[in-house]
Amino acid sequence: MKYRQFVVIGLGNFGASVARTLFDLGYDVLAIDSEEEAVNEIADYVTHAAQVNTSDEKSLRDLGISNFDVAVIGIGSDIQASIMATIIVKDLGVKYVIAKARDELHGKVLYKVGADRVIFAERDMGIRVAHSIVSSNILDYIELSPDYNIAEIECPKEWYGKTIKEIDMRANYGISVIAIKKEHNINIAPRADDMVEVKDVIIAIGGADELSKFENLISR
Amino acid sequence: MKYRQFVVIGLGNFGASVARTLFDLGYDVLAIDSEEEAVNEIADYVTHAAQVNTSDEKSLRDLGISNFDVAVIGIGSDIQASIMATIIVKDLGVKYVIAKARDELHGKVLYKVGADRVIFAERDMGIRVAHSIVSSNILDYIELSPDYNIAEIECPKEWYGKTIKEIDMRANYGISVIAIKKEHNINIAPRADDMVEVKDVIIAIGGADELSKFENLISR
Amino acid sequence: MKYRQFVVIGLGNFGASVARTLFDLGYDVLAIDSEEEAVNEIADYVTHAAQVNTSDEKSLRDLGISNFDVAVIGIGSDIQASIMATIIVKDLGVKYVIAKARDELHGKVLYKVGADRVIFAERDMGIRVAHSIVSSNILDYIELSPDYNIAEIECPKEWYGKTIKEIDMRANYGISVIAIKKEHNINIAPRADDMVEVKDVIIAIGGADELSKFENLISR
Amino acid sequence: MKYRQFVVIGLGNFGASVARTLFDLGYDVLAIDSEEEAVNEIADYVTHAAQVNTSDEKSLRDLGISNFDVAVIGIGSDIQASIMATIIVKDLGVKYVIAKARDELHGKVLYKVGADRVIFAERDMGIRVAHSIVSSNILDYIELSPDYNIAEIECPKEWYGKTIKEIDMRANYGISVIAIKKEHNINIAPRADDMVEVKDVIIAIGGADELSKFENLISR
Amino acid sequence: MKYRQFVVIGLGNFGASVARTLFDLGYDVLAIDSEEEAVNEIADYVTHAAQVNTSDEKSLRDLGISNFDVAVIGIGSDIQASIMATIIVKDLGVKYVIAKARDELHGKVLYKVGADRVIFAERDMGIRVAHSIVSSNILDYIELSPDYNIAEIECPKEWYGKTIKEIDMRANYGISVIAIKKEHNINIAPRADDMVEVKDVIIAIGGADELSKFENLISR
Amino acid sequence: MKYRQFVVIGLGNFGASVARTLFDLGYDVLAIDSEEEAVNEIADYVTHAAQVNTSDEKSLRDLGISNFDVAVIGIGSDIQASIMATIIVKDLGVKYVIAKARDELHGKVLYKVGADRVIFAERDMGIRVAHSIVSSNILDYIELSPDYNIAEIECPKEWYGKTIKEIDMRANYGISVIAIKKEHNINIAPRADDMVEVKDVIIAIGGADELSKFENLISR
Amino acid sequence: MKYRQFVVIGLGNFGASVARTLFDLGYDVLAIDSEEEAVNEIADYVTHAAQVNTSDEKSLRDLGISNFDVAVIGIGSDIQASIMATIIVKDLGVKYVIAKARDELHGKVLYKVGADRVIFAERDMGIRVAHSIVSSNILDYIELSPDYNIAEIECPKEWYGKTIKEIDMRANYGISVIAIKKEHNINIAPRADDMVEVKDVIIAIGGADELSKFENLISR
Amino acid sequence: MKYRQFVVIGLGNFGASVARTLFDLGYDVLAIDSEEEAVNEIADYVTHAAQVNTSDEKSLRDLGISNFDVAVIGIGSDIQASIMATIIVKDLGVKYVIAKARDELHGKVLYKVGADRVIFAERDMGIRVAHSIVSSNILDYIELSPDYNIAEIECPKEWYGKTIKEIDMRANYGISVIAIKKEHNINIAPRADDMVEVKDVIIAIGGADELSKFENLISR
Repeated sequence: MKYRQFVVIGLGNFGASVARTLFDLGYDVLAIDSEEEAVNEIADYVTHAAQVNTSDEKSLRDLGISNFDVAVIGIGSDIQASIMATIIVKDLGVKYVIAKARDELHGKVLYKVGADRVIFAERDMGIRVAHSIVSSNILDYIELSPDYNIAEIECPKEWYGKTIKEIDMRANYGISVIAIKKEHNINIAPRADDMVEVKDVIIAIGGADELSKFENLISR
Repeated sequence: MKYRQFVVIGLGNFGASVARTLFDLGYDVLAIDSEEEAVNEIADYVTHAAQVNTSDEKSLRDLGISNFDVAVIGIGSDIQASIMATIIVKDLGVKYVIAKARDELHGKVLYKVGADRVIFAERDMGIRVAHSIVSSNILDYIELSPDYNIAEIECPKEWYGKTIKEIDMRANYGISVIAIKKEHNINIAPRADDMVEVKDVIIAIGGADELSKFENLISR
Repeated sequence: MKYRQFVVIGLGNFGASVARTLFDLGYDVLAIDSEEEAVNEIADYVTHAAQVNTSDEKSLRDLGISNFDVAVIGIGSDIQASIMATIIVKDLGVKYVIAKARDELHGKVLYKVGADRVIFAERDMGIRVAHSIVSSNILDYIELSPDYNIAEIECPKEWYGKTIKEIDMRANYGISVIAIKKEHNINIAPRADDMVEVKDVIIAIGGADELSKFENLISR
Repeated sequence: MKYRQFVVIGLGNFGASVARTLFDLGYDVLAIDSEEEAVNEIADYVTHAAQVNTSDEKSLRDLGISNFDVAVIGIGSDIQASIMATIIVKDLGVKYVIAKARDELHGKVLYKVGADRVIFAERDMGIRVAHSIVSSNILDYIELSPDYNIAEIECPKEWYGKTIKEIDMRANYGISVIAIKKEHNINIAPRADDMVEVKDVIIAIGGADELSKFENLISR
Repeated sequence: MKYRQFVVIGLGNFGASVARTLFDLGYDVLAIDSEEEAVNEIADYVTHAAQVNTSDEKSLRDLGISNFDVAVIGIGSDIQASIMATIIVKDLGVKYVIAKARDELHGKVLYKVGADRVIFAERDMGIRVAHSIVSSNILDYIELSPDYNIAEIECPKEWYGKTIKEIDMRANYGISVIAIKKEHNINIAPRADDMVEVKDVIIAIGGADELSKFENLISR
Repeated sequence: MKYRQFVVIGLGNFGASVARTLFDLGYDVLAIDSEEEAVNEIADYVTHAAQVNTSDEKSLRDLGISNFDVAVIGIGSDIQASIMATIIVKDLGVKYVIAKARDELHGKVLYKVGADRVIFAERDMGIRVAHSIVSSNILDYIELSPDYNIAEIECPKEWYGKTIKEIDMRANYGISVIAIKKEHNINIAPRADDMVEVKDVIIAIGGADELSKFENLISR
Repeated sequence: MKYRQFVVIGLGNFGASVARTLFDLGYDVLAIDSEEEAVNEIADYVTHAAQVNTSDEKSLRDLGISNFDVAVIGIGSDIQASIMATIIVKDLGVKYVIAKARDELHGKVLYKVGADRVIFAERDMGIRVAHSIVSSNILDYIELSPDYNIAEIECPKEWYGKTIKEIDMRANYGISVIAIKKEHNINIAPRADDMVEVKDVIIAIGGADELSKFENLISR
Repeated sequence: MKYRQFVVIGLGNFGASVARTLFDLGYDVLAIDSEEEAVNEIADYVTHAAQVNTSDEKSLRDLGISNFDVAVIGIGSDIQASIMATIIVKDLGVKYVIAKARDELHGKVLYKVGADRVIFAERDMGIRVAHSIVSSNILDYIELSPDYNIAEIECPKEWYGKTIKEIDMRANYGISVIAIKKEHNINIAPRADDMVEVKDVIIAIGGADELSKFENLISR
């Protein structure tokens, strides 16, 4: 069964982004924060917005939090409040709780008090940015697992006019082309004879080592 | 030519993560912060760490910032300091400057004062998390462009034992399978007759609308 | 096997009292606090005292916390620090962790992150004081369980010169006399023909309801 | 004559606990604090709750404090406010004033300005906890006097199946059994032939030295 | 026996003034404050100056406070510190303790904890100033008792050239001339035929009512 | 002409005392403070009380300050506010302005900006207290000029039963007796044959040196 | 076309002065500040005054800022707010934006984010004051360009009674007389035979070096 | 006699600018601030820089301030410190004291305590900026007196190629041309037949009304 009712607690940049995206995807979203200003700012972009003390069990219960399927604890700067909100919503019976952590220790506490998934937004984005900048040809870098990654690669000039088959990344570098991003669209099912054109960006999947070697190669 | 010298200014969770990842990838990293504690904590994980006032041009120049290829401005909470550091490193001749922004307005200023790329860590992670939670089958969700996305999908039970060809996501849903994540490895070049097994996770690429419809489908 | 090595973290009134009492009882006690002043004050009354950041795993590990049998987390006002210290010492392998909580929610988190016992000093002392003051004859009141309690009772004048047997609290009120506190000693094994004298204090055990009724009776 | 009217000033964890317990015991309780939030929280659990400046004689007089028999000054963190409230209620004619102290010096001042009884909640709870943890068999430890104590003792395995008479703690260790706590009830009048069962907890009274020796014995 | 050893605790404007005046009068003065700056400022004007925590009994005992005859507690803004210092010096055996109070309640506490004399500097100076300004002829006003006062009176013009006998204040207004202040000296034993000259100031003693009436008279 | 209209600005202990004393003496008093609480507290003891920003010329003008004869600036802790209030009331045309100063420099500024009289309450009270405590026989000490003072002297035992003439302080010590304070009244016109009785207090006027020598004499 | 609609954002001393001057010159002025007090103070001296968050694009757009020709950003102490307001008003389409900067770096950022003119009020006034005080004859000094300046010069006594022609500053010192300031008027078109009178002030234009030499000359 | 020795107290933007300009002009400058950072920053650009408490007479006297001819009090944000520094340097015998004021009231106090000249940097710069922006042709505007001003005027296109005589501003508008600013130099003695060229800026002097009318004219 699919989740249909979401509550987002803590409306900083992360929480607000979660809340608005969920609402845009067509779901019911209740957005909660201790600060009136944050609540006012999001009011027009979610189903319902409320200002309550997020560390007070009674206030959260009165809002009917127990009826929600998923809670996202977006509280970031106040670690104590983040922990308290997590334990309260879990106690109130929310099935799936996602919480944002500042660091490893914070994350460990969140799991202990019942969070089902912990997000390390700053750390993960840092890793992704680091990968993307070691080569001027790598535009983005997404970690699938510690060993496998996806990379957006700006095609080196010598590829222009060649087909996927001619470049043959699989054979030459052990990585697979999964899409070709062109200026105005993405070819998500590239065939062997599709040709790489000027300014094309190749999206490839591969082992971390293979991608790393490839990055070094095309960066020269 | 490839970048080889990196300076990271502002060693919060994001900056520290960038600095350590770059150093782990084998690059020279100078890590800078205004706070002594942050500098001490990262000292063992980067080439060099220094405590200086990051809004003071002279201090940064004395550190030889102008010789660096890339600067990552990780300063997040103090918007003024983030802007000042960005304009200073750009003025000192750093070729490529990446800066983290809190919100749209901050990001706009960073671009105006010379940032080559602006990172909205909290907002982007929020979008990604939102997508991943709307269906219990979607484990992760990465936005390639406003129209195309990559999703990690927990296979519904009825797929177990079927081949990629039998499921035929391309024909049925208009999305392509790009990898199959198994418990201990990833098959990054799945063939038509590869079989989906229990607990397999499919990594697929497709249009936002197609993925969205598919999410709804498998979530029932 | 008996515990022999104790570490007390957080040297407020509660923690300092625990540390000094344990040391007075002849045990080895390591006393830790983030504040230099608190450490200096206790230095002469424990085996060893150290000032470290109690939320920093590395600092605590360097002190050899893992070799201790029991940790008492006395941190009271800073809930976050209390939680962090608890999870760290538990992770470091301390077998038995006792932590002081401010309120129910704090206590619940402490249990979740691994505390083996949680102390509600203020709340419990409040209950005890409340019982002791409802009657001018009740000097102290100790809760054994929600249903059974021990009370120190100032003997009403009409008991002076009577024996325990004559008063017969068991038959009359359903409570047992367990000791008779006299001015300079305590008779912990009172016999039926021991006589109650002026200013004697009777220590009795009984059901909460029975003690309550008895309190009302002798308070008139 | 029995006290019937109680006022509790300062509604922190201690004060709130005193107020609620007294109210639960069926007494009239007026609960006062300087902070609105603390007053709101207790309002449903006491006879009357009021927010007034607790250092202002006029405000307290207007509440009719002089008609109360007993005042409990629960103010803990603000020593000055605690002293002021104590002297004011004593001046207003309250017969019996109990005040909570942070440390010895604070306690000394409270007695000088008229407190009839001073509570050292943190220190006393610390002593009690310290005793209870020196042996894994001692569950709780209550100080009756500097020389005599009550202890809750987890029975060592070798006692299982033995009668009180067979164990004969009085003869062997000089301490008396006053109750046997079983899983769902307490036997407050144990007879010589009552048998100790698995998981039973013995509540015993004895000299500090005797209990201490006994603790050492059963902890091996 | 005369006091010879003075300690002044709290070196604000009042305390510093007491300390310097005593030292100028030829007495041994130990001046103490919690703040280094205050101690440095007075160091050259007293026998000995020391910076210690004035609420810490041990620190004060180590300074040998018990050997002093008189202690002046000049601490003004921090009521708690003023009370603590007072009780400590009294406990250390200082015979005579004078303490400055902010208001009535503070003063009452100081007396309760052992102060032998309490000074209400601001209030008393306010009363004195008020009296001196109600008439442009009254230059200063000193309260001897609630009923009797001393006033410095600017002579009205019509008195110039008249003798004390001719003015005859005793007979006319019931007040006594005790001195005549001239431009460069004071005549402290005015005789009946001493003449009042231009700009002379008369120092008179009298009942509060008589002085008040006289003030009204000469103010017209 | 006599002053009849007083405004007191700054209602701390000094200002409040001035305002209440003037009102008690029967004058019209307007009491002003920036803080609502201070205004409320004095409202019942003055003609009119108002809360305004005391550094804002317009607010003070609107209150009709220019019609007042005398302004007392009681603002003490905020030196800037004290200076601003002084210059504003002087500019608004108040004839006589008295201001309280914290120290010499503050006092100098007050005179420069127009204060007609500056009060050093703390310093002056300190001097007075210092004199009164150097001898246990001197009860109070008032400075008339740097050279002449008034002292309240507890009579040494050997004077009991002697007449003023027999003691002859003028001849023996160069100081004049101006009054004899008895338990219930004051004799403000003592004659040569008035007798000193047990517990009498002599009020004497004399040169500073003479009084000082006399103090030393009777203190032995 | 002339500008007719002005908005001034940030009503400190500088901004308030700009706003009032423009209004006095007959233009429409909208004055904005985040603080209510600043808005109230200027309300009577501009066309319209409003309190809004000056870093919030929506609030500024709602005020119709896009219709204004010129915006003056007077925000001085909060650099971030100054930058944000500048970029917002520029984005809203204001043609000409003038912003006040604290220092060079701030100024550089302001230009980057779109300011058309940056004012360094403190620095420029400092230069002007410095020039005016190096000679007691130079009353004011205005920098036209790094090389040319205007100076107000108090005439040396030896010029009294001489004509402009006789003094002949152009020939003697290379500087031109542009006006003669007399006590009650200014002669802005001085002719060769106009005579310099006692207390006249000459306004001259010249090269920085020439003026400097001249200053030295007349200062002897 | 000319001033030769300058001390600048308070090294904010204004004070630092005064100090550096004076030093650049060849004078001895002592620069003083309470903050170490401000002192370090200016140390290389003045004769001597020192960090002292600027409100402490002794510190300033020890620096030999009395030997200086001119003191510039640049302290801006802390009004009390500005007043104290002014009165101290004046008392120490500095002949000429210039002080910066925040507003009228502050300026009035500075004059009262002895400042010889008071600078209203923010207010004056505001007036100047306001004038310069009312017309797009007016580049700068300097107030000589309330009635006469100097303006830098961007020449309207129709003047290009005309001589000063042909334009005849004196006759047409009652204002005098005093200089013509060209791209790379200034003609400070324009003759009647000098021709206005493209992008020339005319510096003119005139009555405020005449300049205002002219501004309106050329702005159409």
